[in-house]
Amino acid sequence: MSEAMLQGMVERVRNWGRWGADDELGTLNYITPQKIAQAARLVTRGRVFALGIPLQRNGPQSGTRQRFNPIHLMFRDGGDQPTDVMEGQGYGGSDDVIIMPLQCVTQWDSLAHVFYAGKMYNGYDATLVTSSGTSKNSIAKTKDKIVSRGVLLDIARYKGQDFLEPGYPISIDDLDGCAEAQNIRVDTGDILLVRTGHVGRALQRGDWADFDSGPSPGMSFYTAPWLHAKQIAAIGVDNYAVEVRPSELPPFRSPLHIAAIPNMGLTLGEIFFLEELAADCAQDRRWEFLLVAPPLPVTAAVGAPINPYAIK
Amino acid sequence: MSEAMLQGMVERVRNWGRWGADDELGTLNYITPQKIAQAARLVTRGRVFALGIPLQRNGPQSGTRQRFNPIHLMFRDGGDQPTDVMEGQGYGGSDDVIIMPLQCVTQWDSLAHVFYAGKMYNGYDATLVTSSGTSKNSIAKTKDKIVSRGVLLDIARYKGQDFLEPGYPISIDDLDGCAEAQNIRVDTGDILLVRTGHVGRALQRGDWADFDSGPSPGMSFYTAPWLHAKQIAAIGVDNYAVEVRPSELPPFRSPLHIAAIPNMGLTLGEIFFLEELAADCAQDRRWEFLLVAPPLPVTAAVGAPINPYAIK
Amino acid sequence: MSEAMLQGMVERVRNWGRWGADDELGTLNYITPQKIAQAARLVTRGRVFALGIPLQRNGPQSGTRQRFNPIHLMFRDGGDQPTDVMEGQGYGGSDDVIIMPLQCVTQWDSLAHVFYAGKMYNGYDATLVTSSGTSKNSIAKTKDKIVSRGVLLDIARYKGQDFLEPGYPISIDDLDGCAEAQNIRVDTGDILLVRTGHVGRALQRGDWADFDSGPSPGMSFYTAPWLHAKQIAAIGVDNYAVEVRPSELPPFRSPLHIAAIPNMGLTLGEIFFLEELAADCAQDRRWEFLLVAPPLPVTAAVGAPINPYAIK
Amino acid sequence: MSEAMLQGMVERVRNWGRWGADDELGTLNYITPQKIAQAARLVTRGRVFALGIPLQRNGPQSGTRQRFNPIHLMFRDGGDQPTDVMEGQGYGGSDDVIIMPLQCVTQWDSLAHVFYAGKMYNGYDATLVTSSGTSKNSIAKTKDKIVSRGVLLDIARYKGQDFLEPGYPISIDDLDGCAEAQNIRVDTGDILLVRTGHVGRALQRGDWADFDSGPSPGMSFYTAPWLHAKQIAAIGVDNYAVEVRPSELPPFRSPLHIAAIPNMGLTLGEIFFLEELAADCAQDRRWEFLLVAPPLPVTAAVGAPINPYAIK
Repeated sequence: MSEAMLQGMVERVRNWGRWGADDELGTLNYITPQKIAQAARLVTRGRVFALGIPLQRNGPQSGTRQRFNPIHLMFRDGGDQPTDVMEGQGYGGSDDVIIMPLQCVTQWDSLAHVFYAGKMYNGYDATLVTSSGTSKNSIAKTKDKIVSRGVLLDIARYKGQDFLEPGYPISIDDLDGCAEAQNIRVDTGDILLVRTGHVGRALQRGDWADFDSGPSPGMSFYTAPWLHAKQIAAIGVDNYAVEVRPSELPPFRSPLHIAAIPNMGLTLGEIFFLEELAADCAQDRRWEFLLVAPPLPVTAAVGAPINPYAIK
Repeated sequence: MSEAMLQGMVERVRNWGRWGADDELGTLNYITPQKIAQAARLVTRGRVFALGIPLQRNGPQSGTRQRFNPIHLMFRDGGDQPTDVMEGQGYGGSDDVIIMPLQCVTQWDSLAHVFYAGKMYNGYDATLVTSSGTSKNSIAKTKDKIVSRGVLLDIARYKGQDFLEPGYPISIDDLDGCAEAQNIRVDTGDILLVRTGHVGRALQRGDWADFDSGPSPGMSFYTAPWLHAKQIAAIGVDNYAVEVRPSELPPFRSPLHIAAIPNMGLTLGEIFFLEELAADCAQDRRWEFLLVAPPLPVTAAVGAPINPYAIK
Repeated sequence: MSEAMLQGMVERVRNWGRWGADDELGTLNYITPQKIAQAARLVTRGRVFALGIPLQRNGPQSGTRQRFNPIHLMFRDGGDQPTDVMEGQGYGGSDDVIIMPLQCVTQWDSLAHVFYAGKMYNGYDATLVTSSGTSKNSIAKTKDKIVSRGVLLDIARYKGQDFLEPGYPISIDDLDGCAEAQNIRVDTGDILLVRTGHVGRALQRGDWADFDSGPSPGMSFYTAPWLHAKQIAAIGVDNYAVEVRPSELPPFRSPLHIAAIPNMGLTLGEIFFLEELAADCAQDRRWEFLLVAPPLPVTAAVGAPINPYAIK
Repeated sequence: MSEAMLQGMVERVRNWGRWGADDELGTLNYITPQKIAQAARLVTRGRVFALGIPLQRNGPQSGTRQRFNPIHLMFRDGGDQPTDVMEGQGYGGSDDVIIMPLQCVTQWDSLAHVFYAGKMYNGYDATLVTSSGTSKNSIAKTKDKIVSRGVLLDIARYKGQDFLEPGYPISIDDLDGCAEAQNIRVDTGDILLVRTGHVGRALQRGDWADFDSGPSPGMSFYTAPWLHAKQIAAIGVDNYAVEVRPSELPPFRSPLHIAAIPNMGLTLGEIFFLEELAADCAQDRRWEFLLVAPPLPVTAAVGAPINPYAIK
């Protein structure tokens, strides 16, 4: 029954071929130059909110899918620097290196990250993702694409909570109700940010335990048609996997991923830090802004760490 | 004599204490909310230029300072995916990992990257950069700071060349002459981009050989007072080290680094890709734009890879 | 008082200059060709015991000193191999990569791993260990040195226990009593193995939790003079740090390390797997064997992972 | 025609099923306890030769199959150590990390490293090697298996050369002639070492350029039946790939690999350092010794770096 439900859903929201047989961008196609120019006009106060969490050893990963937190190492440091300017060609310096899964912090999933019945978005075969990376739908294809109007739906605040309870599925009613309360309309080409408070809660506690594997508030699977109808370009949520955990449709662990990534072609953003932005929006009663979230253009990669800027 | 010259220069451009004894931002302090709001108004056409080079094995590093090009590895791929939806919790997917020096591609140097006489910017001791990273002037401190008006000075085009000759030092006259020809004024808080054509040349040849170690066009050491007087917030150049190679002031290998980073507190951006942006600017005769270049907030790091967006 | 005790001890066991001012081998000098030839004669049954634990994600590290367990990744796998011999130059294959602290599994500490009052073994300055590695006492110096007679003192079995209690300090009386019960004499140039049962316990439980940070049985600090007098070449123990945890001499966390590595010049081996070897020794009543434990010759490194062979 | 030749050969040397349907060791099965005990008796002088090359940035890899040389980084060093014993819990220390392909230095190929017509040794399917590693024929299966009599055939010296010319294929006549000249017989269960001089030449020049991709002396494809008939347990050669380059059987790049690994089940050792051992053998006229070459037991891995000891 879960399988029939899932299949019905994916057929309903599938965008294969919508932007041509060669498309690798999916719903990012909804972003037009006009949309970007309009979004820039939302910048009036010159305030910037950085939505990326810190990249460090204490982080959200505890082993899910073998992911680990960023490992940052120095290979030149200040311990043994020349103090005389003539030594060492006149100066000293420092250098560092990082080792990290591309999806271990605030990040975009590429459209090659999840498969459905052996296929990626737009019908490309999953076998095109080999140990050399992906030859289709890589994050590098989106390198200059991820800027648009951002809209924040602050569901936690709308519900009168500091954070939604782990396991709470955000419904279409929640989304519509919140948008109405905030007096804003989600529109074609928007990058939608949805706040659960879950990342803020972990940071406040200073403890990421179970963040990647435990229950989490998040988008209900059943919001897929709403996301499809709204024609959003991308979505970013302050939890581990955009969608609610545990799954509403077992045994599928991430049914919304299956509907969204390989079928709808929707770019998902995870582990967003929305606390400061949300507080500001609540204060000035404006939940729209210019959102600029460039992915590192890693060739053939299936995801990329980001530090998105919301600019008001 | 080189040493006396360097010392005279660094004293002339030093900004220690200018923004308080606790400052870790340096010239990024020149960026005000007003500046950002004004910069956003430059967006009229909604065109985006991504200034980051690809992160891949074929790249600019051949061993300088032990740096290497990004190593991208998959740890889940499409080779053995379930094709039946019920298998494997209903779907398959892919994951990847990256190993990279933080300064191996398009990047910002942090103010902890270079020392002068045992000191970092604002007088912090170089010994604060240990094998655990830096406790002062880390790139994470700038996480929400790097957006402003961008101004491109296309020196190569101004000189009527596809690319400046390796070893050519860009002078104050070049900068002033180019600005005048482009009918633009470099102003307080701007992020200055300077085009040499050197990255474009490497990409066109498909060959990065000697890019990190050989001769390169770049900013003359003697432009330091100009950069200081213009009160720019940051500078990004399409070469390996912002400044010209070989050095004009041997035995100092990177004298402009010494003047700029630990003394002026100027954030340097290297290996920028400026070809598409420059072509567009030449066409619409507008060399200013909104520049958004968020660093990954790596805790205690001395640099960060970036994919800056120039938005017109 | 702890400090006076430690200083008294280190002066008592210090071997600086014993093998010349240039020595970087320390007690490994006790191994002579004659010793090796004699040790080889102990091989009569042709049985081999591998003393290295598996290198995998589930391992003994949980964050002590930022160490992590080995990360093993494939960069070519069998998912998409040609099945036709003519394709892909006629065959397919696989390749992999590892990322690991050099001291995260069964390993030798080099004599550059621990300092005492700013000095390494033989008086070399600790500042010779820079971000480029160590220029003295590196593990590479021992590349052809670590083979000798191995002697196992099975303290747990001697005490009639499956494993010693966490926190139990093995005393000189334990060592002497066990040697007598086993009818064996620890001699100059031996590589001494001491069994606590602690690694076996973790493997049996399938759980390494707290292995690196919690209480552990191990060598008492006060055995240092005994180790010195016995003139052993090296010691390997089946626990995290050779010595007992918590420390008997707070605030010093690892006082035996301080006595042994920088002062005595004793090579320490950690996280040895001794269960199969110990069971065999108990059965044939012979606790001596040829021990061959070559370190990977990592240039300038301060430790090396190993898979020692005990051959009987 | 090459294909027919290859197919004829692999059928001739194939050992599938020879040691049972579940076998994952291949020719290592030829090593018996008796063989090991006999080999130990060869140790008379107590001399040790380490056959592993240094693990460092300057090494044999220049990009073949995306392999790179070992990257060694410190994450704790001596630059900022406490000199007072009470500080920092009384001592300071150092720690390091390595990032390396498992087959980038002196190493054993596992029997999962090369496929033939979609199969590994003993008929296991190549698809069992996934992005999680291999579930059959991993190097970890051999963790206590690689010790036996070692026999060195010093072909370069036999031919009166410092090193064989790049491209020179070592023939069965060379092997038999050399064995006769050295007055030694290659026997069942031996680990055969074959010296070309090629690694020594690179080390002498201090230059590994083209070592992984250029012409190289090595075993002729046509020695496969000889290797099979001799029933050797493993083979180690001082070149990049055991076999000669360029291939004698184009378009197959490594036809001997195909015959040896997936068909014969022969463990191949590459990039061995044989210069010191060979010089010693020439002097004492004994080309046999105890060879101990434990692989690091990396779970599910397809190769392992080693530092083999030849003990005479």
